[in-house]
Amino acid sequence: MTGPLPAFQRVSAGLFFLALWGMVVGDKLLVVPLDGSHWLSMKDILEHLSGRGHDIVVLVPEINLLLKESKHYTRKIYPVSYSQEELEDRFRSFGNLQFAERAYVTAALMEYKNSMVVIDLWFFNCQSLLKDSNTLNFLKDSKFDALFTDPGLPCGVILAEYLQLPSVYLFRGFPCSLEHVLDFAGSQCPNPSSYIPQLLTTYSDHMSFLQRVKNMLYPLALNLFCSTVFGPYPRIASELFQREVSLVDVLSHASLWLFRGDFVLDYPRPIMPNMVFIGGINCVSRKPLSQEFEGYVNASGEHGIVVFSLGSMISDIPEKKAMAIAEGLGKVPQTVLWRYTGTPPSNLAKNTILVKWLPQNDLLGHPKTRAFITHSGSHGIYEGICNGVPMVMMPLFGDQMDNAKRMETRGAGVTLNVLEMTSDDLANALKKVIYDKSYKENILRLSTLHKDRPIEPLDLAVFWVEFVMRHKGAPHLRPAAHDLTWYQYHSLDVIGFLLAITLSVSFITLKCCAYGFRKCFGKKEHVKKTPKSKTH
Amino acid sequence: MTGPLPAFQRVSAGLFFLALWGMVVGDKLLVVPLDGSHWLSMKDILEHLSGRGHDIVVLVPEINLLLKESKHYTRKIYPVSYSQEELEDRFRSFGNLQFAERAYVTAALMEYKNSMVVIDLWFFNCQSLLKDSNTLNFLKDSKFDALFTDPGLPCGVILAEYLQLPSVYLFRGFPCSLEHVLDFAGSQCPNPSSYIPQLLTTYSDHMSFLQRVKNMLYPLALNLFCSTVFGPYPRIASELFQREVSLVDVLSHASLWLFRGDFVLDYPRPIMPNMVFIGGINCVSRKPLSQEFEGYVNASGEHGIVVFSLGSMISDIPEKKAMAIAEGLGKVPQTVLWRYTGTPPSNLAKNTILVKWLPQNDLLGHPKTRAFITHSGSHGIYEGICNGVPMVMMPLFGDQMDNAKRMETRGAGVTLNVLEMTSDDLANALKKVIYDKSYKENILRLSTLHKDRPIEPLDLAVFWVEFVMRHKGAPHLRPAAHDLTWYQYHSLDVIGFLLAITLSVSFITLKCCAYGFRKCFGKKEHVKKTPKSKTH
Repeated sequence: MTGPLPAFQRVSAGLFFLALWGMVVGDKLLVVPLDGSHWLSMKDILEHLSGRGHDIVVLVPEINLLLKESKHYTRKIYPVSYSQEELEDRFRSFGNLQFAERAYVTAALMEYKNSMVVIDLWFFNCQSLLKDSNTLNFLKDSKFDALFTDPGLPCGVILAEYLQLPSVYLFRGFPCSLEHVLDFAGSQCPNPSSYIPQLLTTYSDHMSFLQRVKNMLYPLALNLFCSTVFGPYPRIASELFQREVSLVDVLSHASLWLFRGDFVLDYPRPIMPNMVFIGGINCVSRKPLSQEFEGYVNASGEHGIVVFSLGSMISDIPEKKAMAIAEGLGKVPQTVLWRYTGTPPSNLAKNTILVKWLPQNDLLGHPKTRAFITHSGSHGIYEGICNGVPMVMMPLFGDQMDNAKRMETRGAGVTLNVLEMTSDDLANALKKVIYDKSYKENILRLSTLHKDRPIEPLDLAVFWVEFVMRHKGAPHLRPAAHDLTWYQYHSLDVIGFLLAITLSVSFITLKCCAYGFRKCFGKKEHVKKTPKSKTH
Repeated sequence: MTGPLPAFQRVSAGLFFLALWGMVVGDKLLVVPLDGSHWLSMKDILEHLSGRGHDIVVLVPEINLLLKESKHYTRKIYPVSYSQEELEDRFRSFGNLQFAERAYVTAALMEYKNSMVVIDLWFFNCQSLLKDSNTLNFLKDSKFDALFTDPGLPCGVILAEYLQLPSVYLFRGFPCSLEHVLDFAGSQCPNPSSYIPQLLTTYSDHMSFLQRVKNMLYPLALNLFCSTVFGPYPRIASELFQREVSLVDVLSHASLWLFRGDFVLDYPRPIMPNMVFIGGINCVSRKPLSQEFEGYVNASGEHGIVVFSLGSMISDIPEKKAMAIAEGLGKVPQTVLWRYTGTPPSNLAKNTILVKWLPQNDLLGHPKTRAFITHSGSHGIYEGICNGVPMVMMPLFGDQMDNAKRMETRGAGVTLNVLEMTSDDLANALKKVIYDKSYKENILRLSTLHKDRPIEPLDLAVFWVEFVMRHKGAPHLRPAAHDLTWYQYHSLDVIGFLLAITLSVSFITLKCCAYGFRKCFGKKEHVKKTPKSKTH
């Protein structure tokens, strides 16, 4: 019982050495972030990298939402052609549009239009950046060791290629979906459609026959949307490089993919050696509650609290919907802490407290928290998993429907359609996840599995970004598949060759047999016939 | 520069917690080992698991080579039907046969016969074990938490299924090859033949067209061998379970695969979430040299030493070959430490010291070691990589040819054909890897990459075996592909369905058009014709 602890000692020694190494050398990292919620995990990683002595430069558009100053990095600001009002208007409009009623037939079109409100803006950013020769010259002269970016919108990806820097991508989705979406595989990760549900389908990994049919056809339908979203990027890239490039070419040069996922939330599937899973990276560090929130929690009595937030992108909710929600919340005995910056609904019940901001992860970690109402963005979902809090999910856009479906199939939450739900639906869902013990048991089981890991996701992310900086990439992890054409990859040329040989051999054999047959029997018949004719 | 070290602190805390956890709970592990060199890494892992308070029972045939008593585990011995002499004779014979001259056309047959000398023995073992009701009853009553085995020969795999225990497999090869070898995928890991060389082909991941053709056909040729090696196992399994099972069925229940490989030695390829890579697990701990070996090394002067071992399975070399080797070794200025238990060659040079055993990893780690002559078994290769020693490789059987090829393509060693090489070939190869600096540079580069990892392979192995014991398996890492038939997995039913629809729609459209065409133009012609006939 007092045996040695070699694991502990050796890992500690290793990381201590790495810590020293990072501090002494201080590599130089260029960061191209995506404004909005995606920035949050990236910021955590940067703070840790900065603490380990690295020199970090973050490329920031002069007008932005969350990319604020920090002692952990230097901001290199580039000009953009829109104002702070326009930016905020667009984000507000994006949020509001999520609650707009939509007819079934036009839902996809509306979804597309909503997304483009923000996506267009990001493209303007990228265009401004790649045309700003001052910034480009500064970047070229700065001699970075690596580039760290979110390839969700691939401006950083293009910049990595332009500056010839090894790159690390921080991403939630699977690039494997890009195999279908963007011409051909950015990561060369196999993606069998028979058990891997396409992003946004909300299918599980066990699909019915018809679901498998739809799952196979889905990327074709999605192509239209994707070509609009991603289409302009290869154009500006080709212009910048003065040669034709496809987005997949550029994406395929990633040294390492950091995925904000794991196999507690996502379904098990093939992965590649240069993919590292860091789901839950955002919920490792927990701080004590402030006096204000400690007060709310303590006052909640035996019923405890419900934490409610629709994420950083949704600041407002249409009045009618807000009132329905407020009514629903009033029907449960728990105290509800609702992060809401819009006009307070007039029917707000006594148990509901509106706050402009809440320490979500710290609150979820409190033993008195009974449920979590979330838009099921991946950050929120992981905070729910880490802290073992059953969820009522109101997915709005992007991967949120998929996240919600995954938690629901695992019995750890209930999904509501925010557009159609009534106040009773909300109250019933809340009561279900709080009083039906199976929800708590399931989320606790997921939580235990998620947190039982040999190394924390934040440390893993820091290690791999440093690895890429130290070794100027990770070419030993790059599959040779990148050097094959699509028909070579699928061995179509080999299959064609083998088929041709088989057919040729069969044909020749057949011909030989036929010839032999004629030789052997044909003549005899002829011989037989001749005497016959003679007897005539 | 004096920032916090959260990575270090958090990992330490995590592992400390785990260490305590393991010690307090002390799970119960059943181990079914494979006698011979495969046992060495497994033993290391067991010693660490035992140090963490787990109760380990190793199933050992009463007649064995290396499965000796230890304070770290209890041995449960089962009877076998052969004697110690027969065992040793067979291993000796196996070793000697590796050096027998062979004609090109009969080489494969001879290889097969050589392998069966040992493989047959392992099957006898398995048969004895699975028919020994005393042992089986003891195992059933013992309530283990998990089973740990080497699936190279799948007796443990069958036992895991029989006892309904979650299992961890320790393996060098890729089970993905089993996709071709054993009917259908034990792991459901994709295995595109276009860039993943089949085991034993010695191809790299960049193959010519003809190599890709051969790589695709190779499994068909190998099938014959594999069905002889593995064929008897499903038979005894079916008998034991009293229902028909295939080996792939049984293999597919693995909770976790621990692979003795990494992507410094192996080529990057798709992997699955339940595969963990622990290559180099055997060369982490290094001890100071004994006085005897310290003496040899110090006496070697400026030229340093060469370490020479053909592994634990080869104890003897035919006299003629041994003399050629001795002559070659005499031609270099280094002191050669040769692990050799046969009769000393009469022409042994002064620089060559024969030893019955040598501390291989400790010697390779000495700065005076200039080269390593190895049979390129994976243990030896990883000790060469860890310690950054260029290698002269004399592969004999199994994956050794592949290992040698991989190191050679990376410029870290030279491969010799042990059957055909002359003494000059050996001397020249040694001089090349010692005096051509590129070999040292390349092996040092590989060594740096290999050792730059967030967690040591031994700790990773210990963590995952404990994980499977703690959670009674790892079902969240099991891909849903296991629940599909082969035609569903490849979406052949979906493709067939879509084709049928496309063809039906095309056919109906065509028919409709034809009908419409006849309706529109057919009648007119008829109408036109009628007047014509009237005019006649």
